[in-house]
Amino acid sequence: MSDTVKYLLDEARLPKEWYNIVADLPRPPDPVLHPGTLKPVGPQDLEPLFPMALIQQEIAAERLVEIPGPVRDIYRQWRPSPLYRARRLERALGTPARIYYKYEGVSPAGSHKPNTAVAQAFYNKQAGVKRLTTETGAGQWGSALAFAGALFGLEVRVYMVKVSFEQKPYRKALMEAWGAQCVASPSSETSAGRRVLAEHADSPGSLGIAISEAVEVAARHADTKYALGSVLNHVLLHQTVIGQEALSQLEMADDYPDVIVGCTGGGSNFAGIAFPFIGARLRGGPDVRVVACEPSACPSLTRGRYAYDFGDTGHLTPLVRMHTLGSEFVPPGFHAGGLRYHGMAPLVSLLQELGLIESRAYSQTSCFEAGIQFARAEGILPAPEANHAVRGVVDEALRCKAEGVSRTILFNLCGHGHFDMQAYIDYQAGKLEELAHDEAALSSALAKLPKVAAE
Amino acid sequence: MSDTVKYLLDEARLPKEWYNIVADLPRPPDPVLHPGTLKPVGPQDLEPLFPMALIQQEIAAERLVEIPGPVRDIYRQWRPSPLYRARRLERALGTPARIYYKYEGVSPAGSHKPNTAVAQAFYNKQAGVKRLTTETGAGQWGSALAFAGALFGLEVRVYMVKVSFEQKPYRKALMEAWGAQCVASPSSETSAGRRVLAEHADSPGSLGIAISEAVEVAARHADTKYALGSVLNHVLLHQTVIGQEALSQLEMADDYPDVIVGCTGGGSNFAGIAFPFIGARLRGGPDVRVVACEPSACPSLTRGRYAYDFGDTGHLTPLVRMHTLGSEFVPPGFHAGGLRYHGMAPLVSLLQELGLIESRAYSQTSCFEAGIQFARAEGILPAPEANHAVRGVVDEALRCKAEGVSRTILFNLCGHGHFDMQAYIDYQAGKLEELAHDEAALSSALAKLPKVAAE
Repeated sequence: MSDTVKYLLDEARLPKEWYNIVADLPRPPDPVLHPGTLKPVGPQDLEPLFPMALIQQEIAAERLVEIPGPVRDIYRQWRPSPLYRARRLERALGTPARIYYKYEGVSPAGSHKPNTAVAQAFYNKQAGVKRLTTETGAGQWGSALAFAGALFGLEVRVYMVKVSFEQKPYRKALMEAWGAQCVASPSSETSAGRRVLAEHADSPGSLGIAISEAVEVAARHADTKYALGSVLNHVLLHQTVIGQEALSQLEMADDYPDVIVGCTGGGSNFAGIAFPFIGARLRGGPDVRVVACEPSACPSLTRGRYAYDFGDTGHLTPLVRMHTLGSEFVPPGFHAGGLRYHGMAPLVSLLQELGLIESRAYSQTSCFEAGIQFARAEGILPAPEANHAVRGVVDEALRCKAEGVSRTILFNLCGHGHFDMQAYIDYQAGKLEELAHDEAALSSALAKLPKVAAE
Repeated sequence: MSDTVKYLLDEARLPKEWYNIVADLPRPPDPVLHPGTLKPVGPQDLEPLFPMALIQQEIAAERLVEIPGPVRDIYRQWRPSPLYRARRLERALGTPARIYYKYEGVSPAGSHKPNTAVAQAFYNKQAGVKRLTTETGAGQWGSALAFAGALFGLEVRVYMVKVSFEQKPYRKALMEAWGAQCVASPSSETSAGRRVLAEHADSPGSLGIAISEAVEVAARHADTKYALGSVLNHVLLHQTVIGQEALSQLEMADDYPDVIVGCTGGGSNFAGIAFPFIGARLRGGPDVRVVACEPSACPSLTRGRYAYDFGDTGHLTPLVRMHTLGSEFVPPGFHAGGLRYHGMAPLVSLLQELGLIESRAYSQTSCFEAGIQFARAEGILPAPEANHAVRGVVDEALRCKAEGVSRTILFNLCGHGHFDMQAYIDYQAGKLEELAHDEAALSSALAKLPKVAAE
């Protein structure tokens, strides 16, 4: 039997619409609140930050949202992305499970992030915007927006969490190769940054701070908007091309997942693979277990509170209802920088509240162990974020083995690890620490959650 | 008109045979000579280094060599690789030329090298070999063999040129993630290495030295063979899947190249894209100009002598007739480490002697300039080696513009630059030096070419 089993969709089957899970949910998402008034915002309140087309998608209720031609055109550079059966991994594990993975590392930026970066760049360009600001942690998102900006002729200014900026000069170099500017955050360019620096001159930064900086700059300039790489409804919407393709590819394989696994930071790659399947279930389709895998050092789904909170540290963003560790929570500096966010996408959070998904937290060393096992079996080195999904899959597959049951497991390999080699060096040298969050800091951050009447 | 034009072949059209250009040449290649006797070697002389199946391919005369099923099976993980039309680059250049590129960076190791690494690992495994040794410069080849070794369960030991070993710890980490061992060369493990260290304790190493070390270790152990990533006939043979796919893909595009461009270090990616087209021409097909682009700091085709020479510095390898700068020539430390080799594939050299290809030398800064232009237009960041091909293509396209003539240009984008970001940092910071070779050193190295009666 062949070791390589690859399901490729014809270009003609690239999805023509994004899938909006809101249309199939038993209850609508809670409203977004204004950071000043704590009252629900209207579309116009978001206009300083986003073009109207994206705001409309943020609150869209229809099931399918058309993907504009120029966005599909760029998607076609690497989409439909391949779906693989991980036969060599199955053999290495001795499991009766059938493991499939969708590989998003084939994009030029190396992750799923361009699925939304290209869409956001398109709508901003269409609205006459000249410049986008954003934040980035590990750098996957900043790279993706730099890539998209280059293709659409938009200036891109990326505020990169300082600790990552210093650890990962190659991410900055990649963004600059595409013509973007990359600034260490906190910076002295913004009042949000200066406020942090005044208190802690040597602050390592955080995603929450970097978001404040990017939002502040966008709000200040009429020709500048802000772009976010995860969390928001429209971002998750754009990622659903992943799961829609996977549905068609599993049809080619004459199979259907019993379990879907994804890693979660802000929730976008997880939503991308899982939402189309959850939606099918909600519309009467097959049952499917869906497992979100997060780092135990930043456990928003497993330990966070489901509450209204700010998206950033400077409290410039609107409030959303989500699983949150508190906007003041600063996770320890583990290597999956893309998962170091205090909150979780409101839609993913709502699905957990509705009992439609499960969540599980993993230590970083156990994730790297699974990632190395995957690389040696399947030949692709996953990003540290993706290793959380791999860990979850290996555990599910070993459970199948223990129970003597064959199940179909689908996961999203959301990116490659080419820009994360220092993490692999540390892991292989036995230098990777088991990081846990500080329980007292978590309690304190949760205690400071804003009091919101709507809850 | 659509910006993304991608030609994907169905898996069923993955080539079933490699193409051997020897069958179509007007004269046979010159024999390989024994390093001791300087007489032609027989297959058995090469057995300490290679399994017999590869030795047979090295001297094969038939036009088509069947690709074993297990090799095609692994190829299918990323092959057929995409062929793109570079429409955004054409527009950026304002050229009437139609530019196509074959993208080999989609392989798990990020370059064309796995095309031969997988084949070599397969034949060695089949012959009962336990361990492979090899050299690597930039690390593309060492990574590819580590990848292939992981899939076939072979130990892989890579001697990496010390200056690259120190500059590129992430390449080493990638090889180790796949389970290979990576050693800085010159090392104290071999007499070839110790000899160099005795003379120059701080030697930066060279590909020629690393080859000597890998060959010595392979020759010493019965269960160990040697693998080379370029130069040899069988390596070039394995790469012809690239050009064969491109032939089919251009047929889909209803187009045919007027010009083919590739970068050359040892010659394998160049041969891979060009040989099937040159073969078609030799069999009465359309005329096609073929341009080899090399670094001006290591100009084997444009400045080397066509002569018998050793493949390594320690003079352990057989001699081949090729364009060479002399086995003692040490090129300056420019950033396209994959092109820092004193010799050139005998088959590529013979084609130049026969007037079937042209060659051109480029400075490294002009290549990085072209690479950045390509990245911003097409979204893919090329490896520094591939930038030489991009430079050649941009020049051809600008010539079309100047002449007001539309020509079809095909090139091989042989790998991505994810592990070469320091070079891009240096280039963007204006720190990349224009390196030239030392003319006196070149004269001296050429003067020391072995005297071979066969010439």
